[in-house]
Amino acid sequence: MRFVDLIVKKRDGKALSTEEIQFWIRDYVAGRIPDYQVSALLMAIVFNGMDDRETVDLTMAMMHSGDVLDLSGIPGIKVDKHSTGGVGDKTSLVLGPVAAACGARLAKMSGRGLGHTGGTLDKLESIRGFNCFLDNDAFIRQVQDIGLAIVGQTGNLVPADKKLYALRDVTGTVDSMPLIASSIMSKKLACGSDAMVLDVKYGSGAFMKTPEAAADLGRQMIRIGTGLGRKVCAMVTDMDEPLGNAIGNALEVKEAVQTLKGRGPEDFTQLCITAAGLLLVMAGIAGDEERGRELARQAIDSGAALEKLRAMVRAQGGDVSQIDDVSKLPSAACETVIRARERGYIAHMEAMRLGTLAMQIGAGRRTKEDTIRPGAGIVLAGKVGDLVEKGAPLATVYHDLPLTQEWLEGFYGAYGWSREPSQRNPLIYKILKSGKADI
Amino acid sequence: MRFVDLIVKKRDGKALSTEEIQFWIRDYVAGRIPDYQVSALLMAIVFNGMDDRETVDLTMAMMHSGDVLDLSGIPGIKVDKHSTGGVGDKTSLVLGPVAAACGARLAKMSGRGLGHTGGTLDKLESIRGFNCFLDNDAFIRQVQDIGLAIVGQTGNLVPADKKLYALRDVTGTVDSMPLIASSIMSKKLACGSDAMVLDVKYGSGAFMKTPEAAADLGRQMIRIGTGLGRKVCAMVTDMDEPLGNAIGNALEVKEAVQTLKGRGPEDFTQLCITAAGLLLVMAGIAGDEERGRELARQAIDSGAALEKLRAMVRAQGGDVSQIDDVSKLPSAACETVIRARERGYIAHMEAMRLGTLAMQIGAGRRTKEDTIRPGAGIVLAGKVGDLVEKGAPLATVYHDLPLTQEWLEGFYGAYGWSREPSQRNPLIYKILKSGKADI
Repeated sequence: MRFVDLIVKKRDGKALSTEEIQFWIRDYVAGRIPDYQVSALLMAIVFNGMDDRETVDLTMAMMHSGDVLDLSGIPGIKVDKHSTGGVGDKTSLVLGPVAAACGARLAKMSGRGLGHTGGTLDKLESIRGFNCFLDNDAFIRQVQDIGLAIVGQTGNLVPADKKLYALRDVTGTVDSMPLIASSIMSKKLACGSDAMVLDVKYGSGAFMKTPEAAADLGRQMIRIGTGLGRKVCAMVTDMDEPLGNAIGNALEVKEAVQTLKGRGPEDFTQLCITAAGLLLVMAGIAGDEERGRELARQAIDSGAALEKLRAMVRAQGGDVSQIDDVSKLPSAACETVIRARERGYIAHMEAMRLGTLAMQIGAGRRTKEDTIRPGAGIVLAGKVGDLVEKGAPLATVYHDLPLTQEWLEGFYGAYGWSREPSQRNPLIYKILKSGKADI
Repeated sequence: MRFVDLIVKKRDGKALSTEEIQFWIRDYVAGRIPDYQVSALLMAIVFNGMDDRETVDLTMAMMHSGDVLDLSGIPGIKVDKHSTGGVGDKTSLVLGPVAAACGARLAKMSGRGLGHTGGTLDKLESIRGFNCFLDNDAFIRQVQDIGLAIVGQTGNLVPADKKLYALRDVTGTVDSMPLIASSIMSKKLACGSDAMVLDVKYGSGAFMKTPEAAADLGRQMIRIGTGLGRKVCAMVTDMDEPLGNAIGNALEVKEAVQTLKGRGPEDFTQLCITAAGLLLVMAGIAGDEERGRELARQAIDSGAALEKLRAMVRAQGGDVSQIDDVSKLPSAACETVIRARERGYIAHMEAMRLGTLAMQIGAGRRTKEDTIRPGAGIVLAGKVGDLVEKGAPLATVYHDLPLTQEWLEGFYGAYGWSREPSQRNPLIYKILKSGKADI
């Protein structure tokens, strides 16, 4: 088999065979196919796509390029969740404890943030002592013991994706539905869970700009997961404006704790409850979603969910007193309240710009080498649709270094205003399930 | 400027700016852009193309990536010719001497053959002592003295094309009109001539499979040349069957000499006369093509053209006695006459298969490292449209090693037969000139 023949085949719009896809991934990871050939194939895929069978084959080949976690020692249905990433997305910090409090077992491997989106690991590491790097045995034991663990990916999980993603990033080949879907799903599947809920975001702060494109990606990931014998459903949710009010690591942990106490922002709470409803049905704990959501609300109201977060933080070496008293979490040197220049309704907020502004003051990384300032970030005082009086607070910024005029103008520029009452996008655009009509 | 932004721009169907194209070629040749990024851009160009301005910019940037020959010391209009390559194409060996005999100055840099197509240098080197590698001064002096030189490319002519072509070859990105056109034209333009005739071949033995595609390529190359101030015209000619009867290096030199003596195959003679007519008009020697063709025929009839070939061979150190007596040219150990198995009309001949068969017995190279057997090859006894009786000769094969059964079956398989009289494609499909209607 010559790799150039695979490139030509895909260039000419034909499907690659299972054997060809296995050859590609196996020999590329082994260093037997040069980057310059793989990047040409990737670009041909950007143009000509891959069909479902090819996408499942690619996902399988990538998944098996490294270790595959065996969670079969843990009794019952193991669940997982994944978000395609957004600004202020701290869902795992609430959904995980809620699901575990209801009896589900959530074994989650997470990533770090880069660019305008935050990473769950960075958020958890703002808790003093929190250890994201358990070995596989400790990870499995913790899921067995308390029903919940959130850790970083181990070294040899899906090496093919690491190598391919690094190449896609510098060759303009990130933007391809089958490549995105197989990248996400190979990592999720290698983590060994039986069922998962996917949160596919769309809008100005998300990779997918339209709800239709996000739904396409969601359906493709469901087909992959279902093709490989997993239960998968997907929520298509709004990321035109940030999720919740807090953007920044310790600030988001605080907001997660508030939400687990029943005092979280409405949109974020709704998303967590909806996702929990789906997870609890897939885990066989709730008969239907309505019942699942009811169980989730009870777990919050009873304090059981917050107790699960405490248990996870304790199990992973974190300082539980920072959960009990969130004012002990890292804070920034300065707090600046930014006020509205005119009276008006917030018509839209550019989530990506707000995420980038938060990154610039230390809440995120521009490059992998950057370090995070855990206390830095932004807490929004209003969201789309809110009426703000002239001089009323728009947001509070937590920062260590002085804010520049340019940063402030950038912040104001992230808002669109209207004199008339404006409407928010529905938070949940659609829920997708395999073999069922979309909701 | 980040190269990945150029890739994304082209992927999204936008045109690259002049500066961006210059940056690409300059930094790639300098080793500052990795192959894996360039191959992704090349694949994006395969899909989204380049407009005329981009193609001219790419040609210019490639042309100036190395030395550019200065022929301005030679008085008058310097002419050149280029063929996109075919089987049995020995046109330069006749067109060069004919044009020079009529007073034109033809300064041609040629290449070697690879795969199923032969190279002019390999043909000339079948003449004992012939030296293809003159330095630039000697090359220019010879064009001044006798009006004709055919040499190999010097080391630093269009290094960008060498590097890009090697990459295209292994990444499925050869097949792109602007990339093909700029590759050919950058090399031609770097050779410094003022006017050129292009022979764009189509059919089973050519890179372009249809006359329409060949005409598109021809028009694109004319636009490039014209855009850079050169006179360019193009013939779109048939390469469904081989050109002339001889395939193989010394065999083709023999056929060229016969043609210069007025006894060449009809199709090949017609092509040379037509090309000469175009060249002599562009050189300002003939007022129109009809007059140019008349001058060309006179140069053959008078022996002046053959004398020019002798002069070139002598000037480049070759053994002129092999021109005067072509039986002194290298020959093969064996001659095998292949006979028709049934009576019939030749309906078609697969030029590429015949070229490959000739290559297999030593007339060409499979890889750059292969050595040529100068005497080996095939001389066809019939062409498309001819009636061949059962048992009559189809061709004579000149070979050093025994022919295998597989080779013989391959030979027979290259022919299509008909009981009814069959028609040849017209040899010259179209003649294209800048700013004029096609002929």
